[in-house]
Amino acid sequence: MDWKEEQDYLVKEYEFKDFKEAFAFMTKVALVAEKKDHHPTWGNVYNKVWIKLNTHSAGNKITQKDHDLAAAIDQL
Amino acid sequence: MDWKEEQDYLVKEYEFKDFKEAFAFMTKVALVAEKKDHHPTWGNVYNKVWIKLNTHSAGNKITQKDHDLAAAIDQL
Amino acid sequence: MDWKEEQDYLVKEYEFKDFKEAFAFMTKVALVAEKKDHHPTWGNVYNKVWIKLNTHSAGNKITQKDHDLAAAIDQL
Amino acid sequence: MDWKEEQDYLVKEYEFKDFKEAFAFMTKVALVAEKKDHHPTWGNVYNKVWIKLNTHSAGNKITQKDHDLAAAIDQL
Repeated sequence: MDWKEEQDYLVKEYEFKDFKEAFAFMTKVALVAEKKDHHPTWGNVYNKVWIKLNTHSAGNKITQKDHDLAAAIDQL
Repeated sequence: MDWKEEQDYLVKEYEFKDFKEAFAFMTKVALVAEKKDHHPTWGNVYNKVWIKLNTHSAGNKITQKDHDLAAAIDQL
Repeated sequence: MDWKEEQDYLVKEYEFKDFKEAFAFMTKVALVAEKKDHHPTWGNVYNKVWIKLNTHSAGNKITQKDHDLAAAIDQL
Repeated sequence: MDWKEEQDYLVKEYEFKDFKEAFAFMTKVALVAEKKDHHPTWGNVYNKVWIKLNTHSAGNKITQKDHDLAAAIDQL
């Protein structure tokens, strides 16, 4: 599935086998986000994770930073 | 701050110093939730974390399981 | 690779693509260990993780608890 | 407790209330280390964490990178 643009966010949803796999994925995303100093708006329920990306300092618009983080998450 | 009841969920919001502290808290909540086999609906943006609890198998109502998990999270 | 018995420990080493993958694996092991209330002696350097299992309460001998945790880690 | 120099490593040990607190600390250290692209040799058993730092690319000697990471860990 590709990232979609919804209300000034890049949005993607993921589904995993169970909570452990979902939270391990979140840990990898956290490591990527902290390294890039660009953090997602995101959530989880059991085996599902949703991620929304935009740039607070650019007035909550989608910027190149969001496309870069999306690409980095896709490589995990 | 106490847990609030909102639309059949127990709800609480947390604010931390930075993303690292927020995600470390989430890691502790993940360990508690997996141990209890009762998982939150939750999300994060930078230093903020929100948690919503109800019981899917009870028709998405608040049950004793949610009060128990809330109490365990409060002890972290 | 199988678990080896070395000096009263069940021992296994893992190698991953990078630190992110290694630490995500550790997060899954942490969730399993906390759920079972049986915790490993373990370490990491960059993309490598080593795990040693025995049972402190049994005089630091290998017990069924260690074989169970090893099997659960193998399923991750 | 301060960091000690032992066999070309900066070394420090930590003790926490329980495994959850220890692993939450490790998660914060992981976020710092990945951001700095400088990773520890480290391990854990239940509520204890040990960290050893040196610089592989400098022939496994202690360098400024290690002192910087040690200082960042101390700030957690």
